[in-house]
Amino acid sequence: MSNNAELATFTGWAATTPKAPLERLSYDPGPLGAEEVEVAVEYCGICHSDQSMIDNEWGNARYPFIPGHEVVGTIVRLGEQARGLKLGQRVGIGWYKGSCMHCGSCMEGSHQLCRSVKPTIVGSHGGFADRLRSHWAWAVPVPDGLDPALVGPLFCAGSTVFSPLLEFDIKPTDRVGVVGIGGLGHLALRFLNAWGCEVTAFTSSLNKQDEAKRLGAHKVVASTDSAAMKAIAGTLDFLLVTASADLDWIALLGTLRGKGRLHFVGIVPSAIPVHVFNLIPQQKSLSGSPVGSPSSMATMLEFCARHQILPQVEQFPMSQVNAAIDHLRSGKARYRVVLDASK
Amino acid sequence: MSNNAELATFTGWAATTPKAPLERLSYDPGPLGAEEVEVAVEYCGICHSDQSMIDNEWGNARYPFIPGHEVVGTIVRLGEQARGLKLGQRVGIGWYKGSCMHCGSCMEGSHQLCRSVKPTIVGSHGGFADRLRSHWAWAVPVPDGLDPALVGPLFCAGSTVFSPLLEFDIKPTDRVGVVGIGGLGHLALRFLNAWGCEVTAFTSSLNKQDEAKRLGAHKVVASTDSAAMKAIAGTLDFLLVTASADLDWIALLGTLRGKGRLHFVGIVPSAIPVHVFNLIPQQKSLSGSPVGSPSSMATMLEFCARHQILPQVEQFPMSQVNAAIDHLRSGKARYRVVLDASK
Repeated sequence: MSNNAELATFTGWAATTPKAPLERLSYDPGPLGAEEVEVAVEYCGICHSDQSMIDNEWGNARYPFIPGHEVVGTIVRLGEQARGLKLGQRVGIGWYKGSCMHCGSCMEGSHQLCRSVKPTIVGSHGGFADRLRSHWAWAVPVPDGLDPALVGPLFCAGSTVFSPLLEFDIKPTDRVGVVGIGGLGHLALRFLNAWGCEVTAFTSSLNKQDEAKRLGAHKVVASTDSAAMKAIAGTLDFLLVTASADLDWIALLGTLRGKGRLHFVGIVPSAIPVHVFNLIPQQKSLSGSPVGSPSSMATMLEFCARHQILPQVEQFPMSQVNAAIDHLRSGKARYRVVLDASK
Repeated sequence: MSNNAELATFTGWAATTPKAPLERLSYDPGPLGAEEVEVAVEYCGICHSDQSMIDNEWGNARYPFIPGHEVVGTIVRLGEQARGLKLGQRVGIGWYKGSCMHCGSCMEGSHQLCRSVKPTIVGSHGGFADRLRSHWAWAVPVPDGLDPALVGPLFCAGSTVFSPLLEFDIKPTDRVGVVGIGGLGHLALRFLNAWGCEVTAFTSSLNKQDEAKRLGAHKVVASTDSAAMKAIAGTLDFLLVTASADLDWIALLGTLRGKGRLHFVGIVPSAIPVHVFNLIPQQKSLSGSPVGSPSSMATMLEFCARHQILPQVEQFPMSQVNAAIDHLRSGKARYRVVLDASK
């Protein structure tokens, strides 16, 4: 693959039918939009959502498409109206790569809630490729001091768990739980520890106990251990669900203190059967949020640089993307797989 | 009935079996607690929760018990440790009449979230009676300028819909919807109009349209009118559910803008089948809350006095309590029934 700025054809790895191995695909990206930037991909993380899209789990995949939405790279072309970025600058692109810029949400800085927000891999090609374009606002500069080989997952996994800390005003004095210790959860533990909170990790087994503590948890609770769940009942201010499985949500609501919030960032398959009796007496909330805004990502990256918070990754050459996806599917990734586009 | 402070026996109207007419009952209240006050009841509102308890709808009624938890009266006895109140002072007592005063919730002013909070009519007798006792903290002074014959329902219905405005930081610039225009909902419309919000009333039919507007709504939407629901989609910041029936919650969640909140104060019978896809993309919340704290009630009463916000009531003599309950059961109460204890 070439980093030549005049490249007329982009080449990547495309899903062609649900669950099949990815295949090489070249495509013509058309003319560069006035507000777009073009990025030469250096690294791209693999997110659970890539797998969900490859498998058409949510029913919105259109084949062929190139997955990949945790991109790090350098800017090789700038549209005429692109703001605040320069050629050669290192940026990251996450789950979204564009928004309308003029609606109420965009104008108040919540670009991620724009009704016309453009997911990076839904309806267009993503970052398992040599090049990716995005709106300039969604190409977020990577600060010096963060290793580009590790920073990719911060743009989706990281931002998804960091955004709620800003949006719901988590305080360093809060007691916070994290459900699910994977790509998102392991970053949540690191963030919350640096945030100053008391951090409790919930796992389905206690095998990950030592690792959860190394990642920043002060306590580890097996959500299947009813005695441990009882001991922690009524104590947490905030419970962040990064898991994507159906769990006993009523038991988990029970770990919250008054005014506590059960917050979802993982795509849980089934409806959550909550009754008002679970919410009203202790004034509890149930909520969800997507990835953060560009501004929130910039704040996250500054925080990461100050505290040297980076994901724990396993690197694969992009040419071995199918082996990397198989590794992710096996459930053994610790905790994020990143593809090196140079290999 | 006598207002004699030495009264050794209290007399009221008790539920003796589910759904039966109330019967006169006298009981010995025992010695006055050191932190208690004793109130000579002047007026008592009838709340939907009284009816639910009379009918043992929630399975926690113990017969016989005297309902009534929207009490207005004057203090006739003060326990030795009662603070901040004096004999003859007019106070109100709502859904709760005591809390532990020392737990984290009590100490931070959220007495209503105390794990030992004492409901006025669950496990003890309420205010369809000549006397009622409460902890001093839960006997909230009625400011001058509010008609005592009307103020009772503010201590339950009023506080239940006012508390969320404080707790969830509703702003005068917000667009707020109210679902259900009854005892709680009609007060919510008055509060929100005075709060400065754009107020939308949701009703099951448009029969109440003119009345909802008179009560403070700027718009009225029939929740069964899909075109009207579509027109309002994505616009509201906060939606307060005062209804106690199962409704199309997913459609109602759809009326919220990004970061919007669907908030329950009505006891809805069935679980709310919410999926994370209804919450995550637009960062929505689902929550509930009980009646407010004593401090929140004092703030409410000051706001009510300044704006002359009072419930619209129909008065019955307490001696005709069964006729009053029948009127409530008929669904024709506009909007709150209040018993006059002097008759």
